[in-house]
Amino acid sequence: MKIGTLMVVFVTCTFWLPNALIAANLSEETENCLGCHEIVTPGIVGDWQNSRHASVSPAEGLAKKDEERRISASRIAENLSGSAVGCAECHTMNAEDHPDSFDHNGYSIHTVVSPSDCAVCHPVEKQEYMHNLMSQAHGNLVRNPVYQMMIENINGPHEVDGTLMRMHAPDEQTNADSCLSCHGTEVRVTGTETRETAMGKMDFLALSNWPNNGVGRVNPDGSTGACSSCHMRHQFSIETARKPYTCAQCHKGPDVPAYKVYSVSVHGNIQKSMDKNWNYDAVPWIVGKDFTAPTCATCHASLIHDDNGQTLAKRTHRMNDRLPWRIFGLPYAHPHPIAADTTQIVNQGGLNLPTELSGEPVAKFLIDEQEMARRLQAMKTVCRGCHSGQWVDGHFARLDKSIQTTNHMTLQATKILSQAWEAGVAEGLPQAKNPFDEGIEMKWIEQWLFFGNSTRFASAMGGADYGVFANGRWAQQKNLQDMLDDLKTLPSGKH
Amino acid sequence: MKIGTLMVVFVTCTFWLPNALIAANLSEETENCLGCHEIVTPGIVGDWQNSRHASVSPAEGLAKKDEERRISASRIAENLSGSAVGCAECHTMNAEDHPDSFDHNGYSIHTVVSPSDCAVCHPVEKQEYMHNLMSQAHGNLVRNPVYQMMIENINGPHEVDGTLMRMHAPDEQTNADSCLSCHGTEVRVTGTETRETAMGKMDFLALSNWPNNGVGRVNPDGSTGACSSCHMRHQFSIETARKPYTCAQCHKGPDVPAYKVYSVSVHGNIQKSMDKNWNYDAVPWIVGKDFTAPTCATCHASLIHDDNGQTLAKRTHRMNDRLPWRIFGLPYAHPHPIAADTTQIVNQGGLNLPTELSGEPVAKFLIDEQEMARRLQAMKTVCRGCHSGQWVDGHFARLDKSIQTTNHMTLQATKILSQAWEAGVAEGLPQAKNPFDEGIEMKWIEQWLFFGNSTRFASAMGGADYGVFANGRWAQQKNLQDMLDDLKTLPSGKH
Amino acid sequence: MKIGTLMVVFVTCTFWLPNALIAANLSEETENCLGCHEIVTPGIVGDWQNSRHASVSPAEGLAKKDEERRISASRIAENLSGSAVGCAECHTMNAEDHPDSFDHNGYSIHTVVSPSDCAVCHPVEKQEYMHNLMSQAHGNLVRNPVYQMMIENINGPHEVDGTLMRMHAPDEQTNADSCLSCHGTEVRVTGTETRETAMGKMDFLALSNWPNNGVGRVNPDGSTGACSSCHMRHQFSIETARKPYTCAQCHKGPDVPAYKVYSVSVHGNIQKSMDKNWNYDAVPWIVGKDFTAPTCATCHASLIHDDNGQTLAKRTHRMNDRLPWRIFGLPYAHPHPIAADTTQIVNQGGLNLPTELSGEPVAKFLIDEQEMARRLQAMKTVCRGCHSGQWVDGHFARLDKSIQTTNHMTLQATKILSQAWEAGVAEGLPQAKNPFDEGIEMKWIEQWLFFGNSTRFASAMGGADYGVFANGRWAQQKNLQDMLDDLKTLPSGKH
Repeated sequence: MKIGTLMVVFVTCTFWLPNALIAANLSEETENCLGCHEIVTPGIVGDWQNSRHASVSPAEGLAKKDEERRISASRIAENLSGSAVGCAECHTMNAEDHPDSFDHNGYSIHTVVSPSDCAVCHPVEKQEYMHNLMSQAHGNLVRNPVYQMMIENINGPHEVDGTLMRMHAPDEQTNADSCLSCHGTEVRVTGTETRETAMGKMDFLALSNWPNNGVGRVNPDGSTGACSSCHMRHQFSIETARKPYTCAQCHKGPDVPAYKVYSVSVHGNIQKSMDKNWNYDAVPWIVGKDFTAPTCATCHASLIHDDNGQTLAKRTHRMNDRLPWRIFGLPYAHPHPIAADTTQIVNQGGLNLPTELSGEPVAKFLIDEQEMARRLQAMKTVCRGCHSGQWVDGHFARLDKSIQTTNHMTLQATKILSQAWEAGVAEGLPQAKNPFDEGIEMKWIEQWLFFGNSTRFASAMGGADYGVFANGRWAQQKNLQDMLDDLKTLPSGKH
Repeated sequence: MKIGTLMVVFVTCTFWLPNALIAANLSEETENCLGCHEIVTPGIVGDWQNSRHASVSPAEGLAKKDEERRISASRIAENLSGSAVGCAECHTMNAEDHPDSFDHNGYSIHTVVSPSDCAVCHPVEKQEYMHNLMSQAHGNLVRNPVYQMMIENINGPHEVDGTLMRMHAPDEQTNADSCLSCHGTEVRVTGTETRETAMGKMDFLALSNWPNNGVGRVNPDGSTGACSSCHMRHQFSIETARKPYTCAQCHKGPDVPAYKVYSVSVHGNIQKSMDKNWNYDAVPWIVGKDFTAPTCATCHASLIHDDNGQTLAKRTHRMNDRLPWRIFGLPYAHPHPIAADTTQIVNQGGLNLPTELSGEPVAKFLIDEQEMARRLQAMKTVCRGCHSGQWVDGHFARLDKSIQTTNHMTLQATKILSQAWEAGVAEGLPQAKNPFDEGIEMKWIEQWLFFGNSTRFASAMGGADYGVFANGRWAQQKNLQDMLDDLKTLPSGKH
Repeated sequence: MKIGTLMVVFVTCTFWLPNALIAANLSEETENCLGCHEIVTPGIVGDWQNSRHASVSPAEGLAKKDEERRISASRIAENLSGSAVGCAECHTMNAEDHPDSFDHNGYSIHTVVSPSDCAVCHPVEKQEYMHNLMSQAHGNLVRNPVYQMMIENINGPHEVDGTLMRMHAPDEQTNADSCLSCHGTEVRVTGTETRETAMGKMDFLALSNWPNNGVGRVNPDGSTGACSSCHMRHQFSIETARKPYTCAQCHKGPDVPAYKVYSVSVHGNIQKSMDKNWNYDAVPWIVGKDFTAPTCATCHASLIHDDNGQTLAKRTHRMNDRLPWRIFGLPYAHPHPIAADTTQIVNQGGLNLPTELSGEPVAKFLIDEQEMARRLQAMKTVCRGCHSGQWVDGHFARLDKSIQTTNHMTLQATKILSQAWEAGVAEGLPQAKNPFDEGIEMKWIEQWLFFGNSTRFASAMGGADYGVFANGRWAQQKNLQDMLDDLKTLPSGKH
């Protein structure tokens, strides 16, 4: 056995070693935190000890070559740069901006670390994320009167009264536990409270709508978003964020079955079958070397290189940078909104929707054809890392067709709904009633929210199941027939 | 390269080595078994060779420190303690108690190894498991007249006769293949049979309802349960039992979507993304070191320590030890039953259900508030390994709310069902007919069994999808509308 | 630390090393390809570099012992045998047979590598696959007039006109994006095109219905199938093909939930929990040593040995070699068709279906009882690698019962459909109208395509969830009730 062989073994095995073996210096403050929290919350301390934050100081991070840097700040304050990014570094950061700061054993700490705190080292990522729809996911949902009616119907505790249904407004807990779990809650300081702890009675600030890790969380410091939605506490690893299971937390349901589609695609198969040989931690992330099939992050977020140092895709935290179409129909698929804050969008019918009920996009709030072409080109460049131009063009031609046909099927459902409203078998817009709360109306919603979306995601990512029998074209057609049958059988005037 | 480095490599790599390399002595009897079975059933022999049973003798297991012991017996008979736990040790154990013992090449062996056999080394686990609802899953289902009517409707081969449906009783095979696959069959000796084998003609005992690995299997020796439901044959590994895929075998369907919910939770994401770095085999299981997010076993079964030797949770095989509420509604969520055998429970309406049809719990069969508080506290202690008290309290406040609102939505469905029975559009309790076998009745069942349960599991484990669009609050509300539409359109008196 | 220990470490770790380290010689042609494609499509080059094709020459493959050979040709032409199987070897193979050959930098290359190309080294596999239903999946679907009506209903862009629905024929793009994604498209040369590439303007042949990797793809060279459906480009690994995620690409939807069923079975659990210790690459594949629970490939395709060199199952690429029943109902489960091309099958009613609408199999096109018994025996031999004869017989008795009861439930749905057609609440066969395009007709389809299939797959593979509440017997019974309710409420004569 030669030494050369042993070297290979060593290199191959090291990524199994906890990074903690090569820990950076700890600040005195963080050491103080750890003194208690190793006992009080051992799980997160252990998790953090396995993190890059625990093992590489900002100064070391800054010293890396440009393309290998994970820090986008050009400089870091001296008091922060030399030691590990530990408890104190984040939970005392920007204390003056935090209404949720409180005295904790002599330190002014805050519970809710926000994107503004992370931005001290990662300002470009924060900036990009602020232009990402996800950062506005809370307001875009709860400040849109149309969606608000949907939430009421879903979350409200309804009351059956004979053959009538009386709606009640949903409570804050239920909203936080359902829609806002992904969209993000509004976290506010609501007072103080004394709690019994392992270290005796201690005072804390009470927070509303807590806990929450939603992508559009409104933080006490006024910032929006939570980096920990995707970079899970307290390891904050790029590896986790690059794995599709992270995206699946919010993008797996029938409304947005992205992960399900991915899991039956060739890409998803290769990932599940072969990723034991991949390196999810490399920056830049090299196609054909570090990975051999894309995950969500490959196409939508990560810095992708080839092995010759050529850039296939820039890192971005505005996830729609390479997305011309928003295939998530509202109710029709449409060009992506220009602004991340979509609450200003209003259609000709006065509804806060990016398309008319007839399907026409509300153009002035949406990106134009030139921008769509630019984004499509950026996406195709990623695909071209493995596929020929012909292959890629053929793929996207099908997606275009799928957008067209699913929008058509949504229009047909809308025609039935209009008839139902006219005939009085349901009450909606013409009657100035909630258009989302009766049986046939909920079927209309599923036509685009479940079946239109599923079909388009299947086209976009090559997961045909979800475009056919699994909530795809089959379901669109069957649902249309159900709506027609309702139109034929439901009595009018009984609401 | 220094020797120190090599040591690290060695330590890191050893868990890839099959344990079989360090095999314990084999008894003569087991060697005899292996002589043929290496050829006849090589798969299970190979599997067993990778097991701890094959490599650690009971005596070695007993010699471990208390908290590291996997054997709960205080002593093991001398004839068993020195050699590996092999074929003969289990399949000839307690032969006199086994009506299924038969002569097999001179040994009195039995096919169905039961919890009573395992209890020779693991008596505490068996004892706990007997107080676990799962151990009674067979009788709790088939000896409950209410559930019996549900089974008939699901498994019976029905007959359409014009617009009428005639029900027939289901056969034993179908029951074994469906409900009892998880709940457990009743395995009885039904006679003897001669079979052609690789070793020539041999005699065996014939068993009814075999094969089966259900959690509440009724064994020929009179014991109930099957340790191999979760500790799969013939490796019986703690690692498998701690992985969520084991629980998913029975807890993934729309009635109890625990694994599905887990898989979109932050916990499930971290598990799938990072568990390549975990040690699933350690006893005790140390939070932050051996694992960094809980699996099912962490919260419900395993002995959890922190790295300082502090116990966060005791090992238990009574899985509801930390569960105040039974969120699996029957038809409403309710405090956990006191006894594992629930066949004695009867409500004021005379139905064998733990709640009234109006939702009120049948208190005298259920744990009281004090016990609920004790269990909640035990669960919170596990959560506190990683989360602050505020976080944990906030989480469980939402679960309480979710229990309340989903029970409310079940009540609304019950109101519609009552009207349907009164109006004669369906026939059920008032008509002394099966209340589960018509369309609107089956929608009522889905209201709590699918949608109520899904929503509550989502709240309990942070998998919001399943509380909203994936069989959650959306489905509860849509189903209610469907039931109302049925009430409006179905003719009366046609059954 | 002894050298012996180090050897063990080395052996354990080597399978983490990319095979590329031990590359075979490259042909000059392939080196030329790589010169550009390392830059143009770095992902697939990297993937291929990790492949066996890149590291083992055909001559080395041929030199292996019979049972270890992955090449079934008895000899390989000298010009091919000495170098790696690279770009040029496959993409210039059999150029004269390829209408899709075109000049590319002086080489006559074709885009669509076909089974006939792979057959140069793997002729037996190609031959077997041609007798596999999958190889005919394109024609069996699109050349069957009955299925054609289903496709029209699913993929056609329908038009609502009052309470009527007007059907339109689906377009080629939509068919390619849905059904034919798995079944395979027909790829034809449609002309030439000049494309802008990283190397400047270049000429290519334009292909219809491209891209596609469906199992029954009709290739420009006239062959059918795509080896890359399961042996994904460009690693073509046996490991990927043996993992269940590959089969899940097409066998996960509600029509054929094979992977879903597997994932809740004991087998699937063990695979997910323990396969980190398995060797998916070994030929032959040794039960109990290389793997301890079956994947799809174990039972349906792979060469399985025990550790004594005994053969449990021969390698086959005719996937139904061990399948007596086709549990995928059309509309009833039936004995497997004799010929892979099923377009000739016609029942007494003149429909191109393998069963009558009453359930009787169309015997003359289907395998007889003797062949069924032979196949069942072959399957049982695989099961017997781990299970006793009693266990295996008990298992298959349940499957028989499940086939019988689900077929019965399909028959009941058919009775309701007949009544609906008679009563004029729907228009189908008696009216010479599409029998698949109205609400009650689509429910009839789901009765067998979703719920019958799901229940039978659950019985076949031990995934009870899918035989009960997850699209199983529960859904069959509920759907029957829904159809009855439709029969009672739908008006007649409105189509």
